Amino acid sequence: MEALVESARRKGSAVVVGLDPAPGHLPPEIRALGLPEHLAARELCLGVLEATHPYAAAVKLQSAYFERLGPDGAAVYAEVLRAADALGLPTIADVKRGDIGPVAAAYAEAHLSVYGATAVTVNPYMGEDAVAPFLEEARGLGRGGGAFVLVATSNPSAEAVQNSSEPPLHEAAARLVEGLGRTGPSGYADAGAVVGATRPALGRRVRELLPRALFLSPGYGAQSGDAASVRALLDERGAGVLVNSSRGIVRAFQGAPEADYKSAARDAARRMREDLAGAGVKT
Amino acid sequence: MEALVESARRKGSAVVVGLDPAPGHLPPEIRALGLPEHLAARELCLGVLEATHPYAAAVKLQSAYFERLGPDGAAVYAEVLRAADALGLPTIADVKRGDIGPVAAAYAEAHLSVYGATAVTVNPYMGEDAVAPFLEEARGLGRGGGAFVLVATSNPSAEAVQNSSEPPLHEAAARLVEGLGRTGPSGYADAGAVVGATRPALGRRVRELLPRALFLSPGYGAQSGDAASVRALLDERGAGVLVNSSRGIVRAFQGAPEADYKSAARDAARRMREDLAGAGVKT
Repeated sequence: MEALVESARRKGSAVVVGLDPAPGHLPPEIRALGLPEHLAARELCLGVLEATHPYAAAVKLQSAYFERLGPDGAAVYAEVLRAADALGLPTIADVKRGDIGPVAAAYAEAHLSVYGATAVTVNPYMGEDAVAPFLEEARGLGRGGGAFVLVATSNPSAEAVQNSSEPPLHEAAARLVEGLGRTGPSGYADAGAVVGATRPALGRRVRELLPRALFLSPGYGAQSGDAASVRALLDERGAGVLVNSSRGIVRAFQGAPEADYKSAARDAARRMREDLAGAGVKT
Repeated sequence: MEALVESARRKGSAVVVGLDPAPGHLPPEIRALGLPEHLAARELCLGVLEATHPYAAAVKLQSAYFERLGPDGAAVYAEVLRAADALGLPTIADVKRGDIGPVAAAYAEAHLSVYGATAVTVNPYMGEDAVAPFLEEARGLGRGGGAFVLVATSNPSAEAVQNSSEPPLHEAAARLVEGLGRTGPSGYADAGAVVGATRPALGRRVRELLPRALFLSPGYGAQSGDAASVRALLDERGAGVLVNSSRGIVRAFQGAPEADYKSAARDAARRMREDLAGAGVKT
């Protein structure tokens, strides 16, 4: 994850801007263009990217919202990834793929090489076979990328699967991350973890298991997490967490009727960077 | 899963033909055409589909092998799904997606509605929130589709994640399937389970937990499973299992140098149907 850590340090920002072109949430000025849905999604993503990149460590693309736009959506997904790359911004393909062996290798090739994301999110249900091929692909590409493995997600129904056995599933996932990652010059491993910020005790426990992993934490703003709740995830240095906000930035215009969507997104990203820094989240 | 059960009964076949256009395994007669990679994959999938559909209950498309072909691959994926549909053959999109709420709903819309698969495979790591949207989408479409949830996969590294806690993860996944599925006129629920055939004791245990679920079992042939090992997964009626073979059919030409790839695939699918029926696998 060297590229992500380097970018976060250079920008002084732990902010990941989530480019989620969810259906039914277009800003009025894009709706007014009357574009086909995939081109409206393209406009939104490129506009938010342009407005927010000075304040972001990385951008994260939610694959599902491009997949539902069919083959045209795949082309837009490719274009947005290229546009972020042209701005020097690392990209996280939020694909949560989980398959094994040659199939996992094909997913890794698709999203890290063909589409060119810096990092991906990965689902560990099928074990090591489902994670290792992504790390191998990232290492082969040598661009400082890696994989964030789902460890402890913050959605309500995760509890019954991830935390209800002994030992709990999140520990098995954390062991996978710890066992497969290789630590780089930044001090962080190329295997990271997706850890929600809404349950501090669980977050602290996962941090104990993964002292040198970069965490990707969703849920800032819209999903009831805040900067204070991120503190439980920090490492010894007070760093090691990238915090994603999707709705809070892409839909910031909904809470700022006088502003255009780009200004609203820019202000939201800037405020989030300051909010995190103010809460002691280092990069 | 009514459409899948109906098709299996009509064809007298528990065979699912896995259309896996894996890189580096093209038949010589397609290689000789010198096509771009996505068109070679298209040729292979449409050729195997044409050759094998009389012997198949369904076809399964491995999403990863289309994703690695970029936006052109997405168009081929769409075309192959339409071609199967035109032959009256139900389709399983092997996407193993695992995300929650509106993101899961977008994946469900993508693969069941936009691309038009009959059923999908789903990863339960994030719990009920990750499974329910697929069932809702399938119910809304009313085409007798559903979702196969990963429960007990047969890859070696699954053990450390799925079977190493108390209660084991596969039980939590099975409870999810049992709780969310709705039983249709066929006697099977619209939530099915992916269960490997390589560990009979585990298979029998999952069948006890899920008496009315349709199982999708990978690994026939290439992955060391055989018709006898499928028997552990059968329900009280001696049915309830669809068995996938990918390499064994799509790459059957590699073991039959005198035959063209379509004849080799056709023979492999026909033999597999007979092999399963001979072992007492009913439909």
